[in-house]
Amino acid sequence: MRKKRAAVLGASGYTGYDLLRILTAHPGVEISHLTAEKHAGRDISDVFPQMSGFLDIELMPLGAESIPDDIELVFLALPHGTSAAVVKEIYERDVKIVDLGADFRLSLDTYTKWYGEHPCPELIEQAAYGIPEINRDRIKTAKLVANPGCYPTSAILGLAPLVKNALIDTDAIVVDSKSGVSGAGRSPSLDYHFCEVNEGVKAYKVGEHRHMPEIEEALSNYSGQDVKVSFTPHLIPMDRGILSTIYVKLNEAKSTGDLLGLYENHYKEERYIRISPEKVYPSTSQVRGSNFCDIGLRAEQSNNTAVIVSVIDNLVKGASGAAVQNMNILAGFDESTGLEIPPVFP
Amino acid sequence: MRKKRAAVLGASGYTGYDLLRILTAHPGVEISHLTAEKHAGRDISDVFPQMSGFLDIELMPLGAESIPDDIELVFLALPHGTSAAVVKEIYERDVKIVDLGADFRLSLDTYTKWYGEHPCPELIEQAAYGIPEINRDRIKTAKLVANPGCYPTSAILGLAPLVKNALIDTDAIVVDSKSGVSGAGRSPSLDYHFCEVNEGVKAYKVGEHRHMPEIEEALSNYSGQDVKVSFTPHLIPMDRGILSTIYVKLNEAKSTGDLLGLYENHYKEERYIRISPEKVYPSTSQVRGSNFCDIGLRAEQSNNTAVIVSVIDNLVKGASGAAVQNMNILAGFDESTGLEIPPVFP
Amino acid sequence: MRKKRAAVLGASGYTGYDLLRILTAHPGVEISHLTAEKHAGRDISDVFPQMSGFLDIELMPLGAESIPDDIELVFLALPHGTSAAVVKEIYERDVKIVDLGADFRLSLDTYTKWYGEHPCPELIEQAAYGIPEINRDRIKTAKLVANPGCYPTSAILGLAPLVKNALIDTDAIVVDSKSGVSGAGRSPSLDYHFCEVNEGVKAYKVGEHRHMPEIEEALSNYSGQDVKVSFTPHLIPMDRGILSTIYVKLNEAKSTGDLLGLYENHYKEERYIRISPEKVYPSTSQVRGSNFCDIGLRAEQSNNTAVIVSVIDNLVKGASGAAVQNMNILAGFDESTGLEIPPVFP
Amino acid sequence: MRKKRAAVLGASGYTGYDLLRILTAHPGVEISHLTAEKHAGRDISDVFPQMSGFLDIELMPLGAESIPDDIELVFLALPHGTSAAVVKEIYERDVKIVDLGADFRLSLDTYTKWYGEHPCPELIEQAAYGIPEINRDRIKTAKLVANPGCYPTSAILGLAPLVKNALIDTDAIVVDSKSGVSGAGRSPSLDYHFCEVNEGVKAYKVGEHRHMPEIEEALSNYSGQDVKVSFTPHLIPMDRGILSTIYVKLNEAKSTGDLLGLYENHYKEERYIRISPEKVYPSTSQVRGSNFCDIGLRAEQSNNTAVIVSVIDNLVKGASGAAVQNMNILAGFDESTGLEIPPVFP
Repeated sequence: MRKKRAAVLGASGYTGYDLLRILTAHPGVEISHLTAEKHAGRDISDVFPQMSGFLDIELMPLGAESIPDDIELVFLALPHGTSAAVVKEIYERDVKIVDLGADFRLSLDTYTKWYGEHPCPELIEQAAYGIPEINRDRIKTAKLVANPGCYPTSAILGLAPLVKNALIDTDAIVVDSKSGVSGAGRSPSLDYHFCEVNEGVKAYKVGEHRHMPEIEEALSNYSGQDVKVSFTPHLIPMDRGILSTIYVKLNEAKSTGDLLGLYENHYKEERYIRISPEKVYPSTSQVRGSNFCDIGLRAEQSNNTAVIVSVIDNLVKGASGAAVQNMNILAGFDESTGLEIPPVFP
Repeated sequence: MRKKRAAVLGASGYTGYDLLRILTAHPGVEISHLTAEKHAGRDISDVFPQMSGFLDIELMPLGAESIPDDIELVFLALPHGTSAAVVKEIYERDVKIVDLGADFRLSLDTYTKWYGEHPCPELIEQAAYGIPEINRDRIKTAKLVANPGCYPTSAILGLAPLVKNALIDTDAIVVDSKSGVSGAGRSPSLDYHFCEVNEGVKAYKVGEHRHMPEIEEALSNYSGQDVKVSFTPHLIPMDRGILSTIYVKLNEAKSTGDLLGLYENHYKEERYIRISPEKVYPSTSQVRGSNFCDIGLRAEQSNNTAVIVSVIDNLVKGASGAAVQNMNILAGFDESTGLEIPPVFP
Repeated sequence: MRKKRAAVLGASGYTGYDLLRILTAHPGVEISHLTAEKHAGRDISDVFPQMSGFLDIELMPLGAESIPDDIELVFLALPHGTSAAVVKEIYERDVKIVDLGADFRLSLDTYTKWYGEHPCPELIEQAAYGIPEINRDRIKTAKLVANPGCYPTSAILGLAPLVKNALIDTDAIVVDSKSGVSGAGRSPSLDYHFCEVNEGVKAYKVGEHRHMPEIEEALSNYSGQDVKVSFTPHLIPMDRGILSTIYVKLNEAKSTGDLLGLYENHYKEERYIRISPEKVYPSTSQVRGSNFCDIGLRAEQSNNTAVIVSVIDNLVKGASGAAVQNMNILAGFDESTGLEIPPVFP
Repeated sequence: MRKKRAAVLGASGYTGYDLLRILTAHPGVEISHLTAEKHAGRDISDVFPQMSGFLDIELMPLGAESIPDDIELVFLALPHGTSAAVVKEIYERDVKIVDLGADFRLSLDTYTKWYGEHPCPELIEQAAYGIPEINRDRIKTAKLVANPGCYPTSAILGLAPLVKNALIDTDAIVVDSKSGVSGAGRSPSLDYHFCEVNEGVKAYKVGEHRHMPEIEEALSNYSGQDVKVSFTPHLIPMDRGILSTIYVKLNEAKSTGDLLGLYENHYKEERYIRISPEKVYPSTSQVRGSNFCDIGLRAEQSNNTAVIVSVIDNLVKGASGAAVQNMNILAGFDESTGLEIPPVFP
């Protein structure tokens, strides 16, 4: 396999590191350019001693102009706003781009409402929303993929079979998500100081998290229905993992077995979705470090409700793994290249 | 204050220890009799070196006959079934009893359905359900209190103002609870082995947990309505604490401020309920080691929903602290005696 | 008991909070004045919702001039340097002072070498080093106590019986300490960001930590010998607790029983020292939240060595608890007033 | 590369799982036979849902007779004693064997003293001690490798350059090790129950751990000197990782730079040893999930001492990774085959 030259912009965060972890073992990719604004000039293995022996290249300052012309694949792990500004400058090059930030995930109206003015509205239509399990055909023809948010990935994959088949009241969906702390990034703040987080659990941004409209738009686009969710994220004292517990009202009574069959069938071609047997509910620890989304569920026939439990590693299927999966599609690699990493346990 | 002689049956578990932690500093209580089936014959400070210097008495085998006649207060921290059998034998004595187990929390029908045959049905009617904030008058006249379950305490206190005032659809309540591991007790099993729990989160007993009917019965009794909940407990990698996120459908639109005002007013005389300001949601770490239940909430006027977040320390307000609060009422002490322990943080 | 009016300067850190936790339940103290530079103007129960219902006073800016004249007891939980500057201004008042910082722990020479110029050298001689177990008589006559460092407390109490009785080679002592993260304070930085600390252990400031000279000076003063230690601190993924493992060379062979007897005897009057039985080594979790130092040990007769394991809660016996113990001595309260708090477990 | 057929005996523990994690991605190995006494008859992906999609074969009961004749590579992750009994029965087959247990790590005398009667003394001499970095030539010619203990790996690699070059007093070595909980295995017991371990640190088996004689023998054999260590293991609240802090007395004064140079040179051909720069000490989190041993150190010229800090992932370089490295040598694969897995962080 000829290796394609790749750049990772924003390489000093947790998502950046996880990209490097996956890409160093990817047979089709050569990591050729890294940026990290705060650490420019340092070697990546100085910032991440983990990388020592794998990758010893210098971190460059951010800036489209410094990206070498021969770069073919670009991963952006940058704050929203910053990301779109770079995409704008390199979009015309002969590159494939996966943006792990929020800039191209939403329609312009929704973006403006939740994030403010968009730095590059003209490219929104060009970007494919990057959940292959619901949008593979569109991704195949794109050169820019908007990698999804971590919470949305777990919620959308947990709900897709139900909304696609119009089985639930799309106005009465509750998504209660629990996330490890790496989802909050690597910038120090009191909120994520060890002793503030350890040995505690809390809800935050109740009804106000920017991933709520992303879940709604993506599922509405996918199903053709107008999907609304009540979304509450929680912070859990662990490094990695998201578990979303999803409560739905079924349009008609279904048994647990019925629904499990539906999910099995819906995802039967999907390498990275695994359905748990009846009465078994997945733990985040069974996907840690891997690209899987594991799903378990229970239906309550007496009152037409169901509870779906969906787990991912927020840094892999919720970020870097999905990005590599999307890039594999963009670049013409087999979709699972570099992603056949079994979970780390414990 | 004359000290009353107290027995703690089942002193070698986490709940047992937490009772000892509180009672050793209680000015009205002298701990005189401890049992622990597995550790009978050992000194309590050998089983719990924590207690060394506070309490140095021998653990006795379980058995009503061995309880000295001069014991005035009895706390039972025993498995269900076992507990009722002991209560049956000592009920006629001149004692006040708080049973921290499940035996007297439910009506006979509900108990039979969820736990099986009841070992002492004749006393069910005598027992007062022990959440003072919703049942204080009944507790005052009882000699036996059924201390509530940990999950029910957090759910019931989070819902009481709404159901009492008939503000919500009692058929569409979702309770999503997250618990620390001490709630599962101190008996070793693979499920609670360190590496199985650490760095992971999972749901369990979805729609099947025995605390679900307890929540429903207690709230139905309190409100006069038929309350149904969808209850999903989760295990979180921390020692102590329960956070319940509660999703309700309001009968009519309310602002967050309206609801906060309602909660403030409803609980204005309650020492152990604290309401968080608007946009602030409590963390379990703000009640750790203390008897408080802290509550925050958010209403969504656009669709008549609300999210309530309720936190307790499962071993204190969810078990031992509530037991002492109940015993204070039974024994005629001031209700807060021995409970003015500020949270431990971090 | 008449309550004495107390000030806590630096109330918004972990040590500050732990002082409040202990002092709110102290029958001889009324907390009357709090400062917190960064949070001045906010209510303490806003900064620490834990305190809600216990203490509702406003945080004031730091500054000796703002301390009310009627304050009788002053606790300083401030950075070194800052602390001495305040002490200088209030020392002549009719107050008792416990400084939890480093400014008065060392001789002038040692301070200058490890910290730089001293802001108030004239008071160094007035300050008593605040480990009552080795310096009670001196504390009794002081008005200013230098509360010891957390690591030094665990190391010194673990070594005191040996050095006092000249039983070991004072040139070959190794102190390997493991600390929870609260010891690093509450200021956000990448080093103490949740994901950087969790699931890892590391050594830091090997041979260069400022607590090393403190251990050496305090033990030298106590024993009349010139004590040298090799000190290596480690950061452990937990909130509270220090465990020091101490390796010594005995001048002559001793059995474990001999040494345990020596320790038992040396500390027989000490409320807050507990000696573990032979073959039992204490865990930090058996002192959590309490003022105890628990010690276990093993001697190796074949080669005249011994290993001593000493555990404390770094925020209690290693900071706030010791401060209250010292203040009790200064203020004429019974030494254990407010400190009879059993450990929290789990 | 033709795949060789491999068996993993004892596949349901943490070490077993980590072997599967590594071997499923190993291009030269096909996992063909798994045993797990307690779970015989279940599918491996039922016991470890992590493996679902990678490996779906049935677990067999232990027993040499059931091992298919065409198995070429055998990994034993069994309790000591059990392991040797199986090796005895299969040794004459045309197989290469890596025993991850303790049975063949020690001389007969030492084994007998620390473990009791040896079940297969005749093969002790045939087994090569499996730390390639100190014993590669011997491993190359063996058919049975005794995979080293986790603590010994970290201690031996941290000390090898010093003892080989006769730079230290081999009678005054202190090894203070801190281990994550996975090192204790997967059998439930109160000692490793979540709440007993979490938020605490403790020493155990002080001066009595069976890894102490292993460290001594291996280093004595390697250096030709009689090496003695004082070894104290500690349990840390994390899943994976060992950090050993090693205190030595140098025969003559060395600078930190001198020693770092010595280590760099000693290990310059070793893929899985990384030396940290001066003043940098490795965290276990920089090797998590990988086969590296990272080493940092500091020399103190004033008193001829040095402190060496050595970190590994106890399940990888301390167990399964080392086993694959050894098997690669035995089977003629490139030594790093399947082991080029970057650390997982956070």
